[in-house]
Amino acid sequence: MKRNSSISEDNEFTFTPLVVLELAKDTHRETIEWLIQRIEGRKHLGGAHFNIRPLDDQVENSKVYLVGASWRRLLLGAEALGFVKEYQDGSMRAFTYQNKEDYKYFSDDDNDFLTMAERQFIIKRELENLRAVNETTVPGHPQVKLYPGKSIIRRLQTSGILIQLYPLHDGAELKKLSFIWYGRLKLAFQPLDDIQKYFGQNIALYFAFLEYFTIALFPMAVIGVPYYLFAWEDYDKYIVFATFNLLWSTIVLEVWKRWCAKLSYSWGTLTMKREFEEPRPGFHGKLGLNPATGRKEPTYPTYKRQMRIYLISMPFVCLSLYTCLCVMMVYFRLEKWASTYNEEVQSAFSTALLFFPSVLYVVVIEIMNRIYRYAAEYLTSWENHRLESSYQNHLIVKVLVFNFTNCFASLFYIAFVLQDMKLLRQNLAALLITSQILNQFVESLLPYWLQKRRNRKVKQKLRISSVKKELPLTDQIKLEGDMDTYLGTFDDYLELFQQFGYVSLFSCVYPLAAILAVLNNVAEVYSDALKMCRVFKRPFSEPAADMGVWMLAFEIMGVISVMTNCALIGLSPQVKGLFQENNIELVLLVVGIEHILLALKFILAFAISDIPSDIHNKLARLEFESIEALKQKQMKEADESLAKEQEQEHEEKKRSR
Amino acid sequence: MKRNSSISEDNEFTFTPLVVLELAKDTHRETIEWLIQRIEGRKHLGGAHFNIRPLDDQVENSKVYLVGASWRRLLLGAEALGFVKEYQDGSMRAFTYQNKEDYKYFSDDDNDFLTMAERQFIIKRELENLRAVNETTVPGHPQVKLYPGKSIIRRLQTSGILIQLYPLHDGAELKKLSFIWYGRLKLAFQPLDDIQKYFGQNIALYFAFLEYFTIALFPMAVIGVPYYLFAWEDYDKYIVFATFNLLWSTIVLEVWKRWCAKLSYSWGTLTMKREFEEPRPGFHGKLGLNPATGRKEPTYPTYKRQMRIYLISMPFVCLSLYTCLCVMMVYFRLEKWASTYNEEVQSAFSTALLFFPSVLYVVVIEIMNRIYRYAAEYLTSWENHRLESSYQNHLIVKVLVFNFTNCFASLFYIAFVLQDMKLLRQNLAALLITSQILNQFVESLLPYWLQKRRNRKVKQKLRISSVKKELPLTDQIKLEGDMDTYLGTFDDYLELFQQFGYVSLFSCVYPLAAILAVLNNVAEVYSDALKMCRVFKRPFSEPAADMGVWMLAFEIMGVISVMTNCALIGLSPQVKGLFQENNIELVLLVVGIEHILLALKFILAFAISDIPSDIHNKLARLEFESIEALKQKQMKEADESLAKEQEQEHEEKKRSR
Repeated sequence: MKRNSSISEDNEFTFTPLVVLELAKDTHRETIEWLIQRIEGRKHLGGAHFNIRPLDDQVENSKVYLVGASWRRLLLGAEALGFVKEYQDGSMRAFTYQNKEDYKYFSDDDNDFLTMAERQFIIKRELENLRAVNETTVPGHPQVKLYPGKSIIRRLQTSGILIQLYPLHDGAELKKLSFIWYGRLKLAFQPLDDIQKYFGQNIALYFAFLEYFTIALFPMAVIGVPYYLFAWEDYDKYIVFATFNLLWSTIVLEVWKRWCAKLSYSWGTLTMKREFEEPRPGFHGKLGLNPATGRKEPTYPTYKRQMRIYLISMPFVCLSLYTCLCVMMVYFRLEKWASTYNEEVQSAFSTALLFFPSVLYVVVIEIMNRIYRYAAEYLTSWENHRLESSYQNHLIVKVLVFNFTNCFASLFYIAFVLQDMKLLRQNLAALLITSQILNQFVESLLPYWLQKRRNRKVKQKLRISSVKKELPLTDQIKLEGDMDTYLGTFDDYLELFQQFGYVSLFSCVYPLAAILAVLNNVAEVYSDALKMCRVFKRPFSEPAADMGVWMLAFEIMGVISVMTNCALIGLSPQVKGLFQENNIELVLLVVGIEHILLALKFILAFAISDIPSDIHNKLARLEFESIEALKQKQMKEADESLAKEQEQEHEEKKRSR
Repeated sequence: MKRNSSISEDNEFTFTPLVVLELAKDTHRETIEWLIQRIEGRKHLGGAHFNIRPLDDQVENSKVYLVGASWRRLLLGAEALGFVKEYQDGSMRAFTYQNKEDYKYFSDDDNDFLTMAERQFIIKRELENLRAVNETTVPGHPQVKLYPGKSIIRRLQTSGILIQLYPLHDGAELKKLSFIWYGRLKLAFQPLDDIQKYFGQNIALYFAFLEYFTIALFPMAVIGVPYYLFAWEDYDKYIVFATFNLLWSTIVLEVWKRWCAKLSYSWGTLTMKREFEEPRPGFHGKLGLNPATGRKEPTYPTYKRQMRIYLISMPFVCLSLYTCLCVMMVYFRLEKWASTYNEEVQSAFSTALLFFPSVLYVVVIEIMNRIYRYAAEYLTSWENHRLESSYQNHLIVKVLVFNFTNCFASLFYIAFVLQDMKLLRQNLAALLITSQILNQFVESLLPYWLQKRRNRKVKQKLRISSVKKELPLTDQIKLEGDMDTYLGTFDDYLELFQQFGYVSLFSCVYPLAAILAVLNNVAEVYSDALKMCRVFKRPFSEPAADMGVWMLAFEIMGVISVMTNCALIGLSPQVKGLFQENNIELVLLVVGIEHILLALKFILAFAISDIPSDIHNKLARLEFESIEALKQKQMKEADESLAKEQEQEHEEKKRSR
């Protein structure tokens, strides 16, 4: 089969593969035929009306199929999923097939109107919406149960028949994108629109935030330099720096909301109607009726879930936090023991031993984070949430609370129990720098190197000369199918969250943190881009209008950092010296300043509106138009009905005369 | 003209007056004819298609007209304004004239489907939406300018031609309502649904909140009793009481949101689509184009408004607050002077003089509140806000900040500067009791008595025997036209807000406050009901789904009360005694507890969802149905278009063979 990179409308016979469907080797013939029939079937018969072809040259251990669709089918899918596109007049409107000619970049000969990511998303979403009609089991696999309304693809996935479903990379596009993204070593903004087109809004928003955050750190970094260089330790200068930082971080987060609204408006996700959320794949329970949809679906009583959350998960999280604190205490004991030992013995060994507790502690923290992450995922999935969003929120809360404690507990202990600012600065620097280097290495460089080696092996096996750049489709699929799957932006946001903590929680003690963060983030842009383009399977694009619950996490971190910074200033020896005779006054002053800063923060957050006024106007215009259209329609109907009524009256009057 | 209390559909000749339109005596004949023509004109000609009749027996000093509408016209208006009504299946759906028969209580012979308040609201809203088409001045009054798109009624109002526009009372209904509401002296819940039907959702929600708040105060009142009786002053008991109060007030506010959602769902306002907000009547500026509607309307640059707010209004508010504090300081000086004088002289006069400063201060506070209120209204209207909602929010913020300072500053001073808990308790009790009595008197009883006297005079003048209960329409209008206008729920909510402050800010010092508040609120229900039914002109109903910005005000008061209560406990002599040797620890402990309580408060507010799950399900069902309906429509269109396409292909293939 020849790969055809252009899609011509209406012609069902030029087939462009968009999505790969990989079935298990032992899948029954009957199952495959049934699945193909359902995928190709007409919509009103419960099909998806896509095209599906087997891969000519089969891959070992699985059966690979390629799914594509006609241009017309894709446009109809775009309408059904509520895609928002730029209209002739520059406004963003929900796409409708009937008025397709009225959209700005629409052309029937050119498939750029829907990006490849969008086309792949349409296929994924509509495949997931293929539902069992009368089938009670999967044909050919009687042990795999179905019920009317159950998503076929999801059942095939959970039963292991469908191994994976992933979108294909587009070699030429990817090359172009990676060149302008990270290929040139030149200071420039990221090509956000291109990233959005290739990877979807969700991932593009992450990179937009990474870039925005880095730029926003600049003023903090610049102001931090003189503090570091001249070792300014006056109390008034510290207060100025901390106050600036706190207000700055509030403004930064608020302005991000505006920038985010601007981006997601231009990408069409701000006004895109939310889809009706289906139960997540892992959700199980007694078969019942969904009160909203009236469809059969598993139901699970809320009180049982609440019991699992409050009686098992919450105690587990608390216990984990307690373990964290215990480990931390052990670390401080070890640290003390090592320093006493060193003082007593003063040998080369004992000096080396001084580093042992820190290294051990960092390693243990990392291991605990990973173990806990698995436990949290297991527990959250065991809590049996009906919706993916609810699952995600519970997982994020669990992981964030633990990560926060694990990473920052020792710093809090040093700052507020030991009250040793010098040690705090050392530890902060050590943690920040090692975590950044570790992350860059574990997250991007190591996988990149592994992937490169694997590619080389596969290519050698396929006996492809590395000179020939454009791979044949079969080989491309063999390569991509083996790549790791990108698990979403969770870890990337988590990393930024931790960094935000290091920068803001103790900003007045270590002004250099912002500079280190800026440097790291510049590198992060490159390594993350490399990771997206070279290491992972292409991910399905996901429409997103904002950062979701991460925004809240960053805001809460901002509030906590107001408290820590105020407390730190109060604890600093210079300030303590000023209030020598009256400690109470000092504490009250610090608490007072903290409350004022918090109030200022909330007022600022309230006063800066989340949507820029020009986008607000555009949204208002759309709203007004839809109301007016409805009124016009009603007025017409009303006038018609009144005319009829008056005729009747007229006749009645005539008769009565 | 005989008043006809039943409306028969389609018959334009039985006229039921709903709304009264009172024009100035000197209104030009031409103006009246033009106005009548516009009100009666067909919709597509820019008219409102209502019926309007002059009052036969004219009232002195004005020309009175009565506006009504046919049943069909009212139903069409209900659809245009997006009224939500109960459907056959028990769900709440936007009313459509076409499917009118499918709504639960619909009957063409019975006008109960639309309450009288709803019918009057339709007339008011559609009259306000009468817009100038080509007129540049009001015919007959060339000095009154118009421009295309300007609301005619609003211009007539601002130019003084239209004196007032108000809905008529319905004697029989009002009698029924007032009997079940406050006529029987019996402990029962208020007839909220009936209040909603007669006065609209806005006012019904206020009474619902008043009732809910009173019931919610019960547990606090009950727990407060033993503290008062046994004079418990142990520090642990106080902490228990304060903690209970703080968490209780959080839960109360969160549960109110759920109860409010339940009410507004059943009243149809929760799912009612917001109307497009028009500029408020007083808004002026250069004529320009509205970016959203494309209509001509006055425009006023935002920066000018911001300058007025930040350069004039804000300094004025700050100055007023400063004046407040100065007056308070004068009061404390006077108080001190009086007590020294009394100690020195010890005569009857000097003892009487002891009360003089408090009485003077209360009177001055009251006077300042009133003067400031006028100033705030003047300033906010001078700020020239485009939208009524924005005007209201700025006014509420101004008034709340000042009222809060004025009412509570002296208490804060006593609590935290003088640290005299006994004096605090005395002053709190005095302020709470006098303000409640004053409010009851000034707000309801005095106006009621005045109104009764006025009624008697008017009736005497009209020589109506007071035995005959049902007044003729002309006399009714003469009576109602003279009644005061109800200015909205602002003052009522403000009163509750102050009360909430007295109860919660210093709850651990004066546990009896809750009991007094409960007693006051029970009386308040009766006096407010009396006020609504007997003292004021009937107000136009106003759709509302919640308390709006007042909710935020109550929540902020809750946060402040956490701080004050923690501080009070820290200041109490018992607690101070415990930490005799180490004051710092005490302060840190108090601050720690405060932060934990605040965190708990936010977590609670976050964990309790604002909408009960059954209403959530109903909303989800509606959303799902509308999405499905859209999809069905699209699928049909898609299948049709695909069928056509395949035919074409088939033909092409045939041809190519």
